[in-house]
Amino acid sequence: MQLAQLAELFSLSYQGDGSVEVLRVATLAKAGVGDISFFTNAKYRSQLISTQASAVILSPQEAQRWSGNALISPNPHLSYAQIAQLLHPAYVPSAMIHPSAVIDSTVVLDARVSIGANAVIEANVRLGSGCMIGAGVVIARNVVLGSDCWIGPNVTILHDCLLGNRVSVESGTVIGSEGFGWAKSGNAWIKVPQLGRVVIGDDVAIGANTCIDRGAIEDTIIDRGAKLDNLIQVAHNVRIGEDTAIAGTVGIAGSTQIGARCTIAGKVGISGHLHIADDVHITAMTMISSDIQRAGVYSGAVPQDENAQWRKNAARFRQLDSLAKRIIALEKQLAALNITQEADKPALDHEKDDAQNP
Amino acid sequence: MQLAQLAELFSLSYQGDGSVEVLRVATLAKAGVGDISFFTNAKYRSQLISTQASAVILSPQEAQRWSGNALISPNPHLSYAQIAQLLHPAYVPSAMIHPSAVIDSTVVLDARVSIGANAVIEANVRLGSGCMIGAGVVIARNVVLGSDCWIGPNVTILHDCLLGNRVSVESGTVIGSEGFGWAKSGNAWIKVPQLGRVVIGDDVAIGANTCIDRGAIEDTIIDRGAKLDNLIQVAHNVRIGEDTAIAGTVGIAGSTQIGARCTIAGKVGISGHLHIADDVHITAMTMISSDIQRAGVYSGAVPQDENAQWRKNAARFRQLDSLAKRIIALEKQLAALNITQEADKPALDHEKDDAQNP
Amino acid sequence: MQLAQLAELFSLSYQGDGSVEVLRVATLAKAGVGDISFFTNAKYRSQLISTQASAVILSPQEAQRWSGNALISPNPHLSYAQIAQLLHPAYVPSAMIHPSAVIDSTVVLDARVSIGANAVIEANVRLGSGCMIGAGVVIARNVVLGSDCWIGPNVTILHDCLLGNRVSVESGTVIGSEGFGWAKSGNAWIKVPQLGRVVIGDDVAIGANTCIDRGAIEDTIIDRGAKLDNLIQVAHNVRIGEDTAIAGTVGIAGSTQIGARCTIAGKVGISGHLHIADDVHITAMTMISSDIQRAGVYSGAVPQDENAQWRKNAARFRQLDSLAKRIIALEKQLAALNITQEADKPALDHEKDDAQNP
Repeated sequence: MQLAQLAELFSLSYQGDGSVEVLRVATLAKAGVGDISFFTNAKYRSQLISTQASAVILSPQEAQRWSGNALISPNPHLSYAQIAQLLHPAYVPSAMIHPSAVIDSTVVLDARVSIGANAVIEANVRLGSGCMIGAGVVIARNVVLGSDCWIGPNVTILHDCLLGNRVSVESGTVIGSEGFGWAKSGNAWIKVPQLGRVVIGDDVAIGANTCIDRGAIEDTIIDRGAKLDNLIQVAHNVRIGEDTAIAGTVGIAGSTQIGARCTIAGKVGISGHLHIADDVHITAMTMISSDIQRAGVYSGAVPQDENAQWRKNAARFRQLDSLAKRIIALEKQLAALNITQEADKPALDHEKDDAQNP
Repeated sequence: MQLAQLAELFSLSYQGDGSVEVLRVATLAKAGVGDISFFTNAKYRSQLISTQASAVILSPQEAQRWSGNALISPNPHLSYAQIAQLLHPAYVPSAMIHPSAVIDSTVVLDARVSIGANAVIEANVRLGSGCMIGAGVVIARNVVLGSDCWIGPNVTILHDCLLGNRVSVESGTVIGSEGFGWAKSGNAWIKVPQLGRVVIGDDVAIGANTCIDRGAIEDTIIDRGAKLDNLIQVAHNVRIGEDTAIAGTVGIAGSTQIGARCTIAGKVGISGHLHIADDVHITAMTMISSDIQRAGVYSGAVPQDENAQWRKNAARFRQLDSLAKRIIALEKQLAALNITQEADKPALDHEKDDAQNP
Repeated sequence: MQLAQLAELFSLSYQGDGSVEVLRVATLAKAGVGDISFFTNAKYRSQLISTQASAVILSPQEAQRWSGNALISPNPHLSYAQIAQLLHPAYVPSAMIHPSAVIDSTVVLDARVSIGANAVIEANVRLGSGCMIGAGVVIARNVVLGSDCWIGPNVTILHDCLLGNRVSVESGTVIGSEGFGWAKSGNAWIKVPQLGRVVIGDDVAIGANTCIDRGAIEDTIIDRGAKLDNLIQVAHNVRIGEDTAIAGTVGIAGSTQIGARCTIAGKVGISGHLHIADDVHITAMTMISSDIQRAGVYSGAVPQDENAQWRKNAARFRQLDSLAKRIIALEKQLAALNITQEADKPALDHEKDDAQNP
């Protein structure tokens, strides 16, 4: 593929030698002849300057500062993704049902389904056309998958869950586990039956070792286009809105509703029964314990520090309320003092006058 | 089942039409004819008012404010759980050993055991009566399960661990992995053999993708009735007390002992070698780094805020100790000033007198 | 094994009865005849005093205070680990390929490989001599393992990853899952192909249910000797340095580089694209959001407190910046007041003089 051809294919412009061959993507630092790279993070500018890439994907502004071969894109990261998909097409296993897979006689398989070795597909499951099911996967009774889903090895999808089209699920993830629902009876906990499903929309991607619990009565819902990373806890009856992206190790407690187009960074924890608006962005390690009504960026965490300094400051955190009260007391005292002084001052001034004019 | 019958079965009273049919549980918002719902969270009062449920489970106080059909319970959530169990009995697979399961010849299976497809049961394992082992489960040598355990698909239980009766384990969970025990030798880490087991009491429930490491010398112990959610880390030699409930993504470091009847909310981290008393409740995202000797509620986290405001406050966190010292300095200065003023004042008063009586 | 023999074997000295038999390791509290224990944590001194162990491993200083049988070591924890390895050798399954394992015809197995039941080994995988592969493991195409690796049951290793010698991986862990790489296209997220591998050095240990994502373009790298605990998230293109140890439930975002010999405690979160120097130690639950250039100990978390007290302090955290500004204002006011007073004072003194000497 030549640079000019790439530009034409994606309706972009280019500068430099349009006939240069582009075979692979590579990082700025490692790229060589035949490689195309991209630049968006100013942190890596020195790598841009010294790159040996045959071409670089740049924004129009950056292209003006750059004399080499460039594909010019209003969104270099997106163009990079598209070109990488083109040059490095995803591996597609042959549409084979491995003979070691255990598939119930009631299972319905549409065209071009592949099922890996030792996978287990239970009664009444339906797998849409083009689904790829990895080795060791367990799909329990009554689950329905749309077309072209990719289910990684050793994934577990529990009974009655519903996945849309083009849903990808990485290895080790569990969809439809029992929600954590317990009623107190004296000191003991009595199980609340978890009667809902997990319902996942089209184009949802779910990372590895993530857990999505089934609903308690109604369903846990992941809306179209949402992307979940690894090791995320999604409790029962949560709803995650369209195109919301959630980073690794986030935890979301039961019945919380998250809007569309949100981004939630790593290690965020969100309490139960909350409502998070659309277009909310939450930075890493924030605890969300009340509703967020308005779009915006939300945070809450302690900044890193050297341990010796942190110890002192952390100890003061435990005194914060009393420190605040001492500030208030100081303000009052000082105000009183000022008043006294103000009250005194005229007298003094007067006195002075008196003294001066005895 | 009629409302009056339900009331009789659970020794509760009811109001309204005792002959109304109750077939299913449902949420207040979605309920219709034949559904019973419950109300305990004031947040959902508007849903109570407009519900179409055939009956609602209410506390005596709420029942007085409600004119519809109601089952009256001192603990509506518990009654709901019991009724849901009755109306929606848990799925019980037929007590079948799937032919694809790999079961060592030394395994002892009591009555009514079911083992799913492609499960692996190694030497000398004993499974109590009524145990249900999911597809793809691996149970390693010498493990013993009591009766009526439910082990979800793709669970791993490592060698020599011991589970009581009615223990449930959700998919992807690992019981008996090697503890994180390493001794320093120069810069390298030398493995400390992990010689203990995991011992789990009766009626314990464990969520999905949770890890419970085996003990280093003695055992890791989960006492009777404890409930663990998803993605929890329980390190070697931890002990978790009876009926303690732990929410998702909590981490507990090695050798920590947690008392009975505690509740530990999501994303809490507990350091190693600590002792947490009975009846301790820890709120979300708290770091516990010292013993808790007394029952009570414990917390430690930063509240959420808009990012712009948080940035300013977080920066001040790093100045907390110096700010506190500045408050102390102000207090001293002000005290000194007051003393000076007090000291000055009589003089001034005297002066005034002098001035007035020259 | 006699105490004197142990001392000779590990080039240590001993005190007391060198002929005492040592058969097992045990804790100080539980040890009896035939047991050897060790003491390093002052918290357990009362257990040392009352121990029934046949011998105890002690530092030279502690040995002087102890009249019983002791093995004297400059590093008692290390000596304990070595003796425990000697007295409790690791279980080695017979080098058997279980007939239920599904092994592609192109797989290369070196000498003494064992493969558990229902494991799946895909095309072109190579397993070095002495590798032990657990039941239910899936190793995808083109993966290469060095010699003597231990892969626990139900582990997943995705295509093209490379593991060195003596690498251990606990159950449920996923190596080589797709990184979380998405480019924005309007509101939607377009997948960025994840083209790198995971490359793991010799003597690395990885806990249970941990996730190590494959690189986006280049590789995710875990260097020789690093130890990772359970439920850790290692995002794409992360590099973890030699002999670095990372505790459970840590999350590391994409492209971050962590130096050698670091220790990272539980629940730490590290943002993406950061550089952490060698010999950095991070305490529990710290958020690292900027580079760490120097070796040292780093922290950032809120200390635990009783909930009622914490509530007050947490509310004040949100006022920190305004409190700080109020301190500054007080300082200014007080300074002004002092100046005024200083300015007044001479006048007053003068007056006094005047008054005294009229």
